[in-house]
Amino acid sequence: MYPNLQNLWEEVRELTLGSTPEIDRLHTPPTPLHFLRHYLSQNKPFILSASTLPWPAATLWSSTSYLLRTLSSSTVSLHRTPTGHADALTPHPSTPNSFCFASADVTRTSFADAVDAVTGSCKESCVAYLQQQNDCFREEYGALSGDCDSDVPWATEAIGGGPEAVNLWIGNELSETWFHKDHYENLYAVVTGEKHFVLLPPTDVHRMYVREYPAAHYNYNEETGEFKLQLENPPRHVPWCSVNPYPSPENQDKEMSEFPLYFNGPKPFEVTVKAGEILYLPSMWFHHVRQTPDSRGLTIAVNYWYDMQFDIKYAYFNFLQSLPAPQEPTSHNLLTNENASDGEDKQREEPVFSCV
Amino acid sequence: MYPNLQNLWEEVRELTLGSTPEIDRLHTPPTPLHFLRHYLSQNKPFILSASTLPWPAATLWSSTSYLLRTLSSSTVSLHRTPTGHADALTPHPSTPNSFCFASADVTRTSFADAVDAVTGSCKESCVAYLQQQNDCFREEYGALSGDCDSDVPWATEAIGGGPEAVNLWIGNELSETWFHKDHYENLYAVVTGEKHFVLLPPTDVHRMYVREYPAAHYNYNEETGEFKLQLENPPRHVPWCSVNPYPSPENQDKEMSEFPLYFNGPKPFEVTVKAGEILYLPSMWFHHVRQTPDSRGLTIAVNYWYDMQFDIKYAYFNFLQSLPAPQEPTSHNLLTNENASDGEDKQREEPVFSCV
Repeated sequence: MYPNLQNLWEEVRELTLGSTPEIDRLHTPPTPLHFLRHYLSQNKPFILSASTLPWPAATLWSSTSYLLRTLSSSTVSLHRTPTGHADALTPHPSTPNSFCFASADVTRTSFADAVDAVTGSCKESCVAYLQQQNDCFREEYGALSGDCDSDVPWATEAIGGGPEAVNLWIGNELSETWFHKDHYENLYAVVTGEKHFVLLPPTDVHRMYVREYPAAHYNYNEETGEFKLQLENPPRHVPWCSVNPYPSPENQDKEMSEFPLYFNGPKPFEVTVKAGEILYLPSMWFHHVRQTPDSRGLTIAVNYWYDMQFDIKYAYFNFLQSLPAPQEPTSHNLLTNENASDGEDKQREEPVFSCV
Repeated sequence: MYPNLQNLWEEVRELTLGSTPEIDRLHTPPTPLHFLRHYLSQNKPFILSASTLPWPAATLWSSTSYLLRTLSSSTVSLHRTPTGHADALTPHPSTPNSFCFASADVTRTSFADAVDAVTGSCKESCVAYLQQQNDCFREEYGALSGDCDSDVPWATEAIGGGPEAVNLWIGNELSETWFHKDHYENLYAVVTGEKHFVLLPPTDVHRMYVREYPAAHYNYNEETGEFKLQLENPPRHVPWCSVNPYPSPENQDKEMSEFPLYFNGPKPFEVTVKAGEILYLPSMWFHHVRQTPDSRGLTIAVNYWYDMQFDIKYAYFNFLQSLPAPQEPTSHNLLTNENASDGEDKQREEPVFSCV
């Protein structure tokens, strides 16, 4: 353990981020220069009030019948898990007191069936989440694309090009996204409902206890309504964040003693993004996301992924991450994190998220 | 020694800086957005061709009589050393095989006498350099201020404010500036003659062998024409870069074996800034400067110091610097580098340069 890590976590807060769990709030869109100078260049998040309210989506998407009509001929990718946690750590299917990295069951279905699944029909036995991230808003949901801006204009001008991917997210109150980070500059717009983010800067990487977990996939049996969790064969290991910021009461003491750098370090940043607001989530920031749905039981969001610069900040991050973390006894199984860069390389090729 | 340091030095070159000793060359001024996006945010240098040529200074300052006439009533700060090296490591005045950090003798004199000293009258026994850095161009040399732009417009717009200090430099072929770094974004414009920079990015801090040296000052005796090097009393130690990139032939083997990370690591960046050109020297970059004078024996330059952002990059740098460097036997005397931050704090208050 490097005693200086604590200094680093504190200094980045003293210098630029602030020492409270709050992030900057802007009430009018920044100019491209202001965004570049004060946020993107500094790798610093902010939330922008009332930015998406002029979008047609702000009113149209409150009507489920509008969505059903517009997407009546669309086939979409539905992600299903037993608990709402996809791309998350889950008890290992065969090794006691051990964890694996579990991906959702993904099925292609009509939008009407998908919305049914998210709002209720699937809820007894599973949690459904529309969260395909492969530029889905411009692909699967292309029929809705006229309802939102095709980019975030001040970000496009600052970054010098449009978004690499635009994704639509439709979930319910059980949908949760485990701590991870993306190799993109992220503009995250909520259209209905609310999203609750917990954020940690990249300097705090050791507080995430990134470890290698065996990859596994849920398979959902439509007839029995049961999930089976299957390890990948041949085995593959995924470096992933170990920390759950909201452990269940019975696990709390164990988690806190297992991940002290997270639970005893500086408080994470917390932000709720409401309908009409946009969060600038800087590249490489760790984020955990929960949501509160609207009166229909849906949270709908659109996010814009812009290419990040792989510059001196990224080199510093990789160096920091390469320094060994404190080793403590743990029930979370681990290999080395030597292969941590594998996930990153893959990340640069295809727009999926990663924890390393 | 951290084996990962070498990876860091290489990765920042692979990702953004390039692996040759050359830096980017622009032929037209960047837009403020381009400057922010591709250079300032990435902490990446470039050279801009023919940018100061439209300045009145470009023609007027070739005439010494113009300078003498315009500054006929100005008193300026003249820096004198026996060798042309100020703020540089110099053999300790009383401890053999040991070094101190020597500052120049500084005297206030008429501009006419100062130019005489730089071009010749002082050269037999000393090297004179007009290099007062306390915003001297707008203070001591205010009478010349109409001859140059008062700022670098695209930098002012990108950074969101004008320069914190503008300095004038008038030296000869012996004037040399030892490796150090500044806590400013630096736009360095050469008006006559040439400046030769050796540059290392902040990620390479361990290659500079920053160590604590006792502070000393030269005192010049006008009558005898001799210098006396006096240690400060009470003693004060200054963290400073130990490496001389141009060791004399008889010292070369010793220096190379003493500072292997510098001499055996990736090649430093090298750039010659010619009359009419501007170098963007990013904050925190280590730089060593030599010069070639014009036909009169003068190199004249103006530099603009803009406030830097003390952001996540700065926090990363401080963390990196706090990691111990390899310890090898050395004839350069050293204490700890615990106090390295002292110089930085001071730096933020007054515009002088520092090596830490």
